[in-house]
Amino acid sequence: MKKILFTLLIGASVNASANTDSLFIRKIYDEAMANGDAYENLRSLCKDIGARITGSAEAKMAVIWGKQLLDSYGFDEVYLQEIDVPHWERGTKEAAWIMNEKGDIHKLNVIALGGSVSTNGLLEGEVIAVNSIEEMEALGEEKIKGKIVFFNKPFDQKLLQTFHAYGTCIDVRHEGTNAASKLNAKAVVIRSLSSSTDTHPHTGSMKYDPGVDSIAGAAISTVDSDILMDWLSKGKVNLKLEMDCKNYGFEKSHNVIAELKGNKDNKIITFGGHLDSWDVGEGAHDDGAGIVHSIEALRILNHLNYEPKHTLRCVLFMNEENGNFGGKNYARIAKEKGEEHICALETDRGGFLPIGFDIWGTDEQVKAVQAYAPLLRSFQLYKFDAGYSGVDIRPLKDYYPDMIQLGMAISSQRYFDFHHAETDVFESVHKRELHLGAAALAAMIYIMDQSL
Amino acid sequence: MKKILFTLLIGASVNASANTDSLFIRKIYDEAMANGDAYENLRSLCKDIGARITGSAEAKMAVIWGKQLLDSYGFDEVYLQEIDVPHWERGTKEAAWIMNEKGDIHKLNVIALGGSVSTNGLLEGEVIAVNSIEEMEALGEEKIKGKIVFFNKPFDQKLLQTFHAYGTCIDVRHEGTNAASKLNAKAVVIRSLSSSTDTHPHTGSMKYDPGVDSIAGAAISTVDSDILMDWLSKGKVNLKLEMDCKNYGFEKSHNVIAELKGNKDNKIITFGGHLDSWDVGEGAHDDGAGIVHSIEALRILNHLNYEPKHTLRCVLFMNEENGNFGGKNYARIAKEKGEEHICALETDRGGFLPIGFDIWGTDEQVKAVQAYAPLLRSFQLYKFDAGYSGVDIRPLKDYYPDMIQLGMAISSQRYFDFHHAETDVFESVHKRELHLGAAALAAMIYIMDQSL
Repeated sequence: MKKILFTLLIGASVNASANTDSLFIRKIYDEAMANGDAYENLRSLCKDIGARITGSAEAKMAVIWGKQLLDSYGFDEVYLQEIDVPHWERGTKEAAWIMNEKGDIHKLNVIALGGSVSTNGLLEGEVIAVNSIEEMEALGEEKIKGKIVFFNKPFDQKLLQTFHAYGTCIDVRHEGTNAASKLNAKAVVIRSLSSSTDTHPHTGSMKYDPGVDSIAGAAISTVDSDILMDWLSKGKVNLKLEMDCKNYGFEKSHNVIAELKGNKDNKIITFGGHLDSWDVGEGAHDDGAGIVHSIEALRILNHLNYEPKHTLRCVLFMNEENGNFGGKNYARIAKEKGEEHICALETDRGGFLPIGFDIWGTDEQVKAVQAYAPLLRSFQLYKFDAGYSGVDIRPLKDYYPDMIQLGMAISSQRYFDFHHAETDVFESVHKRELHLGAAALAAMIYIMDQSL
Repeated sequence: MKKILFTLLIGASVNASANTDSLFIRKIYDEAMANGDAYENLRSLCKDIGARITGSAEAKMAVIWGKQLLDSYGFDEVYLQEIDVPHWERGTKEAAWIMNEKGDIHKLNVIALGGSVSTNGLLEGEVIAVNSIEEMEALGEEKIKGKIVFFNKPFDQKLLQTFHAYGTCIDVRHEGTNAASKLNAKAVVIRSLSSSTDTHPHTGSMKYDPGVDSIAGAAISTVDSDILMDWLSKGKVNLKLEMDCKNYGFEKSHNVIAELKGNKDNKIITFGGHLDSWDVGEGAHDDGAGIVHSIEALRILNHLNYEPKHTLRCVLFMNEENGNFGGKNYARIAKEKGEEHICALETDRGGFLPIGFDIWGTDEQVKAVQAYAPLLRSFQLYKFDAGYSGVDIRPLKDYYPDMIQLGMAISSQRYFDFHHAETDVFESVHKRELHLGAAALAAMIYIMDQSL
């Protein structure tokens, strides 16, 4: 990286290699914007496959879909990597109501959290609302026992990066049921983790600790959350909940992988998104967009007859949503095989406008990437800050601590309107924004390949 | 500006004023994101008023709406500025069909261009397709006379900034009818100026030169344009067109103005968008967003008890779309009154994600604004390039050539999907993106007020 970095820093008079880079990146963008496949590939993934939670028939079809598509592009190698993944199903029943002391009834838009147990028929209890796990624990078992705990923790709209708002709320979804069970609550319902006030409930992962009784966990829409809080301000509210979801243990699935071989060495640059999604909507932004970004980046580089120095490996990870067994096993297998991984890039923040890359590495590695900011500004990429990469590639860093990791930074304003909800469908993705994402990823892969 | 600029440049140890700026800008953003009125104001403008072309009853209601809203915020002064504006109406008939030699009939989604004359009943002619005015003129009068000229000039998807694609196509809409009339064409139909391939036609301004016969001008959807081109590739195509639009000359209307008075001098910083829109859709992005951005910026500064050095003047310009009589007269009246204008800011690029500001001024003025880029990065504003401001404030520059002008830079990827079409409605605007725009505008007004 240092050679090009130096060239950029010493100014315009000698930046021949920067000019070459700029021209090649222009070709990447031209191909993506004028002839790109990403939008049509996403349509197919969303409509021909659909929502594809790990263990479902759709997830199995998505593996076939991914392999066939990668095969069709004539890459050097396409293969499946077998992994074990959890299998959970929502079941056929999912309904909830609240009733106040006057007997008013309101039906809630409810969704089971991923991994929840069944309610074993219609479960009923008085609702107690808290803002946080800490507030619940301060109330203690006496106040919580036998109740249905409602975690009402709205997004902080003042946080400009919505992932930060999500980050401050995610504990109630991931840990809330577990923590409430320890206080002998009957069940947990949470306010959906969403930026917007609407009627769509949002699911997502939760966990049960060993030795803790598994009680049901669900989310209700933000509109219903406001209604419930209003009712609670006026008196006692009972909640009735029925869900027949079930865990089926583990089964076989696959990461889907394609490569362009390096002409200099066997060092590997991994990039990808996750092929699985939640079981509602179509997983369009989360993470169909990342899947088609990644496939398209490799297609464009191959189409432009680019001969990489290092092996460029596109990975469609399975099971990011509930366990990350795709990412964890990919990293473990890489180390067992003695592979040399120097860089990884992830795109799992939606198909919206790309704005740059977050960089995870040493200060020197961060600065080396930031040296390309002037080159990438003309492609409307502005943000190159030290930051996090992504869930799928994170485990690689455990085995290869010296590697550089990059997370594609994407405008986050709309993401959590759709995240894990029935609204995350193909129609919510904009073609030009999606294709800009594919081009940005291809450009950064090219820069990493050239500079490392 | 130089004092703060200097402070920023000499580094962190002495940038107390930059810290003060950052804290105040944080307050602006907190107010906009947590308690902002912009989204609700836009809902009201779109739903309680609606599309508001100059001269319409809706435009008159929009003036009342704007004045009442500004009055409600308790600014130092709110007033109307009388201007003359053109009055054109679409009429009640608007339909078009194509028919090929086999007798196949296809109805087109058609819309009259703004200012077009009527067809005086059902007009019919053979279609001749060209890509540009130059191509039409090269064919000459012999090939054009008596025909309906179809300008099929698609957006270049490779241009990352969609305003550039628009810029390369706008001549066929603005000049095409005029140029075709000189060659004795019967009428002009254009491919809608849009980034997307869909079924919605897009209107917009056109002109007739004095002494040139006025022939009808219309736009058809991009999908219909592709169908028409396909039919033309297989043989002769006739087009039938009926429109009964009409020009009604000029009438009185108003710019709507609110001020916070400066505590240091009478120098003026103008900012605004345009209150009029085309007569289809609801003018949500064009330019309802700019209107509520501007009102909200002044509301926030007032709410935070900000005491400006210079007079901050929010202007809701009338008649940007077809003549810019609001902007032209505002500038003329300013000069006649002997006002001193030092800066103007415009927001007329939609309610999407703000990314920075384009700066129109001397190199020194551009650099002085760019010195604030580090301050504004933490508010996700990245782009501070020399560039164009906006149609409404541009005439001020003729009278005050030393002033600095700023155009709010907004992600352009989705803008021309909605521009001048029935799809430009409130529902196409995202609350957080809209409120970020209002905050960005308020922040830059504050910076300009402090630094000039």
